[in-house]
Amino acid sequence: MQHTINMKDNEIITLSHGSGGKLTNNLIKKLFLKKFNNPKLQPLEDAAILNISGSYLAFTTDTFTVDPLFFPGGDIGKLAICGTINDLAVMGAKPLYLSCGMVIEEGLKLDTLKKIVDSMRKMAEATGIEIVTGDTKVVEKGKGDKIFINTSGIGIFGEGIKPLENNFQPGDKIIINGTIGDHGIAVLSARQEFGFETDIVSDSAPLNGLVSEILPIAPGIRFMRDPTRGGLATTLNEIVEGKDFGILIDEEKIPIRESVKGICEILGFDPLYVANEGKVVLIVDQKDANRVLEKMRTHPLGKESRIIGKVVSEPIERVCLKTRAGGTRIVDMMVGEQLPRIC
Amino acid sequence: MQHTINMKDNEIITLSHGSGGKLTNNLIKKLFLKKFNNPKLQPLEDAAILNISGSYLAFTTDTFTVDPLFFPGGDIGKLAICGTINDLAVMGAKPLYLSCGMVIEEGLKLDTLKKIVDSMRKMAEATGIEIVTGDTKVVEKGKGDKIFINTSGIGIFGEGIKPLENNFQPGDKIIINGTIGDHGIAVLSARQEFGFETDIVSDSAPLNGLVSEILPIAPGIRFMRDPTRGGLATTLNEIVEGKDFGILIDEEKIPIRESVKGICEILGFDPLYVANEGKVVLIVDQKDANRVLEKMRTHPLGKESRIIGKVVSEPIERVCLKTRAGGTRIVDMMVGEQLPRIC
Repeated sequence: MQHTINMKDNEIITLSHGSGGKLTNNLIKKLFLKKFNNPKLQPLEDAAILNISGSYLAFTTDTFTVDPLFFPGGDIGKLAICGTINDLAVMGAKPLYLSCGMVIEEGLKLDTLKKIVDSMRKMAEATGIEIVTGDTKVVEKGKGDKIFINTSGIGIFGEGIKPLENNFQPGDKIIINGTIGDHGIAVLSARQEFGFETDIVSDSAPLNGLVSEILPIAPGIRFMRDPTRGGLATTLNEIVEGKDFGILIDEEKIPIRESVKGICEILGFDPLYVANEGKVVLIVDQKDANRVLEKMRTHPLGKESRIIGKVVSEPIERVCLKTRAGGTRIVDMMVGEQLPRIC
Repeated sequence: MQHTINMKDNEIITLSHGSGGKLTNNLIKKLFLKKFNNPKLQPLEDAAILNISGSYLAFTTDTFTVDPLFFPGGDIGKLAICGTINDLAVMGAKPLYLSCGMVIEEGLKLDTLKKIVDSMRKMAEATGIEIVTGDTKVVEKGKGDKIFINTSGIGIFGEGIKPLENNFQPGDKIIINGTIGDHGIAVLSARQEFGFETDIVSDSAPLNGLVSEILPIAPGIRFMRDPTRGGLATTLNEIVEGKDFGILIDEEKIPIRESVKGICEILGFDPLYVANEGKVVLIVDQKDANRVLEKMRTHPLGKESRIIGKVVSEPIERVCLKTRAGGTRIVDMMVGEQLPRIC
């Protein structure tokens, strides 16, 4: 199965190209990967693995354009630190150093900028990472939107901990550390046009602590990823793409808050596609799954960890969902844009 | 001398905060440096020096917002690769890996994006660096301006080559590898409102080749920097800030194209403050200066290299210019914004 759509030269870039779904995938494969082709970019992981003077490093980049800047449970500054930390952590690396590149729209209040920078500092301190290099650009009013923040990050692989091997096997368990969709709905609820009152809070959080606890105990951890843009469904589809196995998840076991489910039903969203910012999906050898689960549950960010599915030998390249009603349906990669500028 | 201006909470961010001049310096020192304070950020060099498992790395970030995207001698893609390569090269590091984070405004033609990506690829190939990780965001029409590109980069220090020591001494020579102001005026000339015809071409170029030729021959190279935003004057002011020496440059020796000089005179710009994208300023022990100069002149990007001044014991913290008329004037850091969105 190819998650691609033809690209024509007279095409224009739409919001869907940035959604994390099919069109993003298409743009990355047909343009960036083709042009910038090299073995380190090729795997399209959350971070590139670099061997520098015999040490393995992970290197990643992410730009944050979330709108609004402040939302229940977080802000663009917190996201910019946690998002990049998480991209390194899910590779199995220990995040160490971040860069910070800001594009500010003329007219942003200095006070707003200070709040964002304070939030970044707080998360940096809490996670033990250092912001070591930066750049600030200012664009004219109407040529940006308050502030965009790029953070790039470098992580190292700890003693005895190597990059994950991704040697998936049928029977491997799919684990997630808690409820899905909280971040997307929290950001949506902070938008002016949103007509509901909710108490939903973004799950935005740094995952390096949780990950560092389970990595040493489990050689059977095959793969980790944080299901951000495009949600759980898109992440799982990315995993099976081009592979000789599929994934089967169990609707009944996927943790979703009732309030998130309610808003999604009213607005016609599928929570499987809604962004998370403090979740990690793991694929773990079935022999190690319970041990990993138990350890995860001892961590504040892993209390609600659950096995939600497994790797299956067929249908290959497909993510299927066992529904509550007992049927099975294919869960495709997201097409188009559910919630623009969610991170 | 303090290059600072008081900051008030009700202040707003203006284009001048992104100009590379006094207000940028102020924002960095009073906000970013204060909040993100750590010894690796503290020197405010073009790249941070990191010691990872005994190897020295340089790590840098830069966001490119140049307007227009295409201009004589380059485009935003070329700038995004060369700019970050140069920030690593002037630290004495060999640039290896780049990230690429794009913020695209909805409606950008795919064809335009392809041209930019092609330009990036071409520069990556020419310089031997790899783009190993990336991120793409799309914002709504009117919330961005066509495309902004962040590149962050990692470089290593070659065998026997350590980070420069910046042990400046009075008598050290100031060297530049060619004419100043070409980039700023080339970008300006590509803007619709520009009313002159010129043949001025941006000097945008990767400096890693030139730098790698001179580094091994000269232990007396104290310092290098590429004078981009804010131009030569701002770079020299950054060097002397807080130091117990000054810099004296000689107007007659600073290479400026007649056409650049002419446009600057008409528009009221001082070429000392106009951005460059393929220039490096070196501070070199006077004993090594001629050897460095000779070697530089053998490289295509160093043919017009010249000694333009020297480190002086006083006045401290000042950059002074010996004018053609025989007088001496202080060259301050730029205040405000000469040319917004030049890189």
